[in-house]
Amino acid sequence: MTASQTDLDSNPLVEPQEVHFDELLELESKGTLNGYSLTYETYGTLNSDASNALLICHALSGNHHVAGRYDDSGRSYGWWHLLIGPGKPIDTNKFFVVCSNNIGGCNGSTGPSSINPETGKPYGTDFPIVTVKDWVYTQAKLSDHLGIQQWAAVIGGSLGGMQAMQWSITYPERLRHCLVIASASKLNAQNIGFNDVARQAIRTDAEFHNGNFYQHQTSPARGMRVARMIGHITYLSEDMMGQKFGRSLRKKSKFDYEFTPEFEVESYLRYQGDQFINKFDANTYLLMTKALDYFDPAAETNDDLTQALAPAIADFLVISFSSDWRFSPERSREIVRALQSNKLNVSYAEVDCPQGHDSFLLEIDDYTRVMRSYLNRIARESSDAEADHNV
Amino acid sequence: MTASQTDLDSNPLVEPQEVHFDELLELESKGTLNGYSLTYETYGTLNSDASNALLICHALSGNHHVAGRYDDSGRSYGWWHLLIGPGKPIDTNKFFVVCSNNIGGCNGSTGPSSINPETGKPYGTDFPIVTVKDWVYTQAKLSDHLGIQQWAAVIGGSLGGMQAMQWSITYPERLRHCLVIASASKLNAQNIGFNDVARQAIRTDAEFHNGNFYQHQTSPARGMRVARMIGHITYLSEDMMGQKFGRSLRKKSKFDYEFTPEFEVESYLRYQGDQFINKFDANTYLLMTKALDYFDPAAETNDDLTQALAPAIADFLVISFSSDWRFSPERSREIVRALQSNKLNVSYAEVDCPQGHDSFLLEIDDYTRVMRSYLNRIARESSDAEADHNV
Repeated sequence: MTASQTDLDSNPLVEPQEVHFDELLELESKGTLNGYSLTYETYGTLNSDASNALLICHALSGNHHVAGRYDDSGRSYGWWHLLIGPGKPIDTNKFFVVCSNNIGGCNGSTGPSSINPETGKPYGTDFPIVTVKDWVYTQAKLSDHLGIQQWAAVIGGSLGGMQAMQWSITYPERLRHCLVIASASKLNAQNIGFNDVARQAIRTDAEFHNGNFYQHQTSPARGMRVARMIGHITYLSEDMMGQKFGRSLRKKSKFDYEFTPEFEVESYLRYQGDQFINKFDANTYLLMTKALDYFDPAAETNDDLTQALAPAIADFLVISFSSDWRFSPERSREIVRALQSNKLNVSYAEVDCPQGHDSFLLEIDDYTRVMRSYLNRIARESSDAEADHNV
Repeated sequence: MTASQTDLDSNPLVEPQEVHFDELLELESKGTLNGYSLTYETYGTLNSDASNALLICHALSGNHHVAGRYDDSGRSYGWWHLLIGPGKPIDTNKFFVVCSNNIGGCNGSTGPSSINPETGKPYGTDFPIVTVKDWVYTQAKLSDHLGIQQWAAVIGGSLGGMQAMQWSITYPERLRHCLVIASASKLNAQNIGFNDVARQAIRTDAEFHNGNFYQHQTSPARGMRVARMIGHITYLSEDMMGQKFGRSLRKKSKFDYEFTPEFEVESYLRYQGDQFINKFDANTYLLMTKALDYFDPAAETNDDLTQALAPAIADFLVISFSSDWRFSPERSREIVRALQSNKLNVSYAEVDCPQGHDSFLLEIDDYTRVMRSYLNRIARESSDAEADHNV
């Protein structure tokens, strides 16, 4: 499950890049952005006919730094470095891998903490609601900028998987493969409930200042901490939490009968919460959860997912994890059935493992084997295409 | 599932009563209370040999008002009135039913919002941590006060089921039957995690004032609201939330792309949160969740639940609900196996229904049938006992 030191050192050094689009962006929410920037990273080399390019879409708290490392500190690895890199399942010796920070984000791309050119202040809650469709549109603009007419594959886990699905609907000709991992075609009421609790924790924090906390030199850190703690419980399975923490006490054998953390699991969740508040923007967190809630391609086709996915022509790989209760295997099977009804080529893997929703970020043998094998197939097609092109 | 108007009107008028115990109470946490009061209610009539008495133990946000009604407003029914009353499964025509507010509570019994006689101010966080064992001890004091040497049954759901179990261990001779509903012999890491998130939401609220918010004429209402919203998600099943709310929008057909509640489920959870903050004390909520976390009778017997329950001599009815993911049927089966290993009489019912943990509060045919049938058996024993006594 954990990468060896050799694996870690094999993460190549990488630097983020930026592109600015000087257009008036009209969003699905009817909001607008008068120009926007995307921060992105690339790994590997684009081949001569640009047939080996993979787009990775990030999830809720992810960003463009999906692989590689920034320095030698050992702390700057990309969030999916276990799967992406030289010789890894998504092999950067074969593929040109691209990942951008979504608009609304807080890691470089234009978002609520960016300066609004019209006011000279951070956007705050003036930043419009963004959706999966908006992200896919801006990712297509980045594709144009990079000279990539068609992606060998668009790949994403969780909220990233929703973007991959949307690509297959909006730009069917622009991807040959679509990899949808630990995702769903829409959130259910429980998912939305958890998201709204997280949002309420943030928005009712006294330091939220209606989203304009930047001007008050503060942030709704307490609300963010609670939001992240809730999130973490839903990312792990009940079994995994049992295996990892059980009822173990923290550095003691008896209860102190105090409100300081007594159980290991309390300590873990609070630590995760504390870590998060210093590196993520509260308004971005709110926007990302809203984009999750809104995604529902079948809402436009009378709840008929088959019809919603009818434009798709890509081959699909759908992967779910047995212990993922946030986006359970049944949610993936719904997608698979709709794709099959459209007579598309669909591969489906349900990986049996205890790690819950977080599984998609981890090295799990069955999972990496499926990924490696499918990506090898794509690599062969890409090199065939290049050979044809070079003839 | 819902009671008819006739059922509701059959709830008899009831008034809370109070008893003060003028003793120094030494708690499991090593904290002490210099005297304490219990607020309780009774329903039905105690028979001549006091053989028809049932003790109901309440859960996290419950109190002594378990049945009946206070007035004609239609809003003052007890929290378990669907199951307890004249002619109901727990039939107050046959039984003398008692329920007390636990110490640490906020509905009359001595708790953090009570005046500390030593300071003349509310206890606040000076109120000591209380545990299931402490509650059972004080309930035994109430039993003495009421002249009930042996309960026909001690009955509880969720945290109340833990108290019923503890009764069978601490005072095996004082109950003939033990009804443990939707409960567990200990919380798992996920349960503790959810509790700690709720606690952190409250304790990090700027209005918490280290638990002494009473003096500041305020309360950590925003934290309580979030805590209650989290709780409600875990009380319902994913399926039930899907059936009840799905992705339905609130009074509209299209998204507004705003942070006001858009989905019905958001509206429901926020409403539940808002209702709660006006009627429950934050320090009590903290104490109740800690008591849940600490309960683990097998911790004293090397994690051997059979050994922990070895003192028990009561007959048991254990009930679980298929869709309860807070305390799943497997947690009830653990209890059943331990009881069987002790060669006790155990009945076990796993009720197949979609309502989740909340099921134990509801009228569900299979559930009420099991309860009615088991309580009828107890009633026959009690009347036999009385007949013997009267001979």
